[in-house]
Amino acid sequence: MDMGVFAAAVAGLLLALTIPAGAQPNNVLPSWNDGEAKRAITGFVDRVSKEGSPGFVKAADRIAVFDNDGTLWPERPVIVQLAFVLDRAKALSPEHPEWKEKEPFASLLKGDLQGARAAGDRAMMEVIVATHAGMTSAEFERIVQNWISNARHPATGRLYTEMVYQPMLELLEYLRANDFRTFIVSGGGIEFMRPWAERVYGIPPEQVIGSSIRTKFEMRDGQPVLVRLPEVNFVDDREGKPVAINQHIGRRPIAAFGNSDGDLEMLQWVTAGTGERFGLIVHHTDAVREIAYDRDNGPGSLDRALDEARARRWTLVDMKKDWKVVHALDKQQAAGLK
Amino acid sequence: MDMGVFAAAVAGLLLALTIPAGAQPNNVLPSWNDGEAKRAITGFVDRVSKEGSPGFVKAADRIAVFDNDGTLWPERPVIVQLAFVLDRAKALSPEHPEWKEKEPFASLLKGDLQGARAAGDRAMMEVIVATHAGMTSAEFERIVQNWISNARHPATGRLYTEMVYQPMLELLEYLRANDFRTFIVSGGGIEFMRPWAERVYGIPPEQVIGSSIRTKFEMRDGQPVLVRLPEVNFVDDREGKPVAINQHIGRRPIAAFGNSDGDLEMLQWVTAGTGERFGLIVHHTDAVREIAYDRDNGPGSLDRALDEARARRWTLVDMKKDWKVVHALDKQQAAGLK
Repeated sequence: MDMGVFAAAVAGLLLALTIPAGAQPNNVLPSWNDGEAKRAITGFVDRVSKEGSPGFVKAADRIAVFDNDGTLWPERPVIVQLAFVLDRAKALSPEHPEWKEKEPFASLLKGDLQGARAAGDRAMMEVIVATHAGMTSAEFERIVQNWISNARHPATGRLYTEMVYQPMLELLEYLRANDFRTFIVSGGGIEFMRPWAERVYGIPPEQVIGSSIRTKFEMRDGQPVLVRLPEVNFVDDREGKPVAINQHIGRRPIAAFGNSDGDLEMLQWVTAGTGERFGLIVHHTDAVREIAYDRDNGPGSLDRALDEARARRWTLVDMKKDWKVVHALDKQQAAGLK
Repeated sequence: MDMGVFAAAVAGLLLALTIPAGAQPNNVLPSWNDGEAKRAITGFVDRVSKEGSPGFVKAADRIAVFDNDGTLWPERPVIVQLAFVLDRAKALSPEHPEWKEKEPFASLLKGDLQGARAAGDRAMMEVIVATHAGMTSAEFERIVQNWISNARHPATGRLYTEMVYQPMLELLEYLRANDFRTFIVSGGGIEFMRPWAERVYGIPPEQVIGSSIRTKFEMRDGQPVLVRLPEVNFVDDREGKPVAINQHIGRRPIAAFGNSDGDLEMLQWVTAGTGERFGLIVHHTDAVREIAYDRDNGPGSLDRALDEARARRWTLVDMKKDWKVVHALDKQQAAGLK
């Protein structure tokens, strides 16, 4: 071999090995197609994390907040926690013969979620409370752990945790690799998400924020327990989201990720701060790999926030065009892992 | 110089430089006298942080919670936030001529804290709400920042932030050096502590938990703000502390530090967990350098928790015997820094 060629090859290899991570677009967010959305994300992350850049933000302030339902995992055809409510109501129904006559329990027990929802939010809250209260926090955690390990999505027959969005998992990891801390800020129950959020999303309990019922400290047989009461404590949706962010985090995040009108105030609050800010909305445009929806009145509908996204130049993710795969399991299947 | 002596000296120096941190008791908690309390602390930290030790706890679960008033800084002769309330009431009194006739405002404006407290907790809550609400969270932060930078302790004429307990600052740092995360869990206002807790204690806003009033998201001139409402949201004291820990952190800490009956349920909750646990109570025994108190009815009184500390073998810190210096400024003065 001509040693000059060999030397050039070695030099090339060394060059390849020393290209900084930021310059390797193929290794970053691999399930995202190259396009406007991906470029907006990587551009923002580069600006805030490069020391000396005019947009630099110190690591402690690199906080990103994520909605859960419809942003990190599906919320149609059924909000996952509603499926949990349904299963819990069935399990508890022998102790509640009156539910057969009483809405929304009656519809729910027949599996008629549409009918149950027709009873209104207040009535649904009654169901949530009836199925989520009365036990200790530790007992509820075991109930959730057991359910999430076994319950399956009605359309695909998969575990719900296999239905999480692969591109969003990569986004969470990419942000953390750049010293962001990632938080969930969800309308879902805080103690419904915490038992599995670390395993599935890499997000520890103290970074999960959600709706809650009241709990009460009690001594039982000399042991302290927290008992879940049948009373709403906080609804972490819409204008509740910035309030909860302020209460739990105490500083304004610099990036917010959502998918529906329930995330509008969070996006407004986060992007109105000074310095570099980032707002992103996952737009459910894929009728084949998922369900296409926006301006209807179903769960997670996107109407006002879609208009604001355009007016305020938040990044709109077109699921159909921007995502190579949708669910985490698809990725594993494509890679021959399952 | 005899080169043999020189070589021995160098060897000694090298040896001194390579002794592991754990073996240098003089460098750890320097303001603590050697004694039972210090040994209990370092013994616990060694057991949970040494990989392979039977008591080992992974870093993510090394969470320590600290009460603030009476544990990290003084609460007598006056709870610091009450001094803030008094100054705020004076500043606002021109807009409230009715306060001159109305208790507990009337006593408060005359500087009679004893008389004001006699009106009862409910009435005092009215004062707190009147002096803490009506502005945005951002405005309140500025008010607190300005106050804490200027207000002085009535007995010593020092800034309150110079009165924090030096041995406890060292304890916070020592725990963090062993990969603990340190949280404040205080009956004081969450937004009263966050503006200065990071500078003074090294505890960032998201690790400060406290009492709160309700806030509301609003758009003002197209800008989102959080407005503080005259309504109590949560009282983070007594049985409220374990509830707040569960709500904010979502896992049970392994160590709790308090000084009064207000910390009893927190200590019970934390130390009842499985594996290595640590509970500590600062006992105000020093009538010379501070104020000696326990079983009276004043702020931060220690009665039931003192009995439980003995029964449950929590570590009792005897301020007079265990602490070489009390306040942070004393330490600076001793070192010739001020």
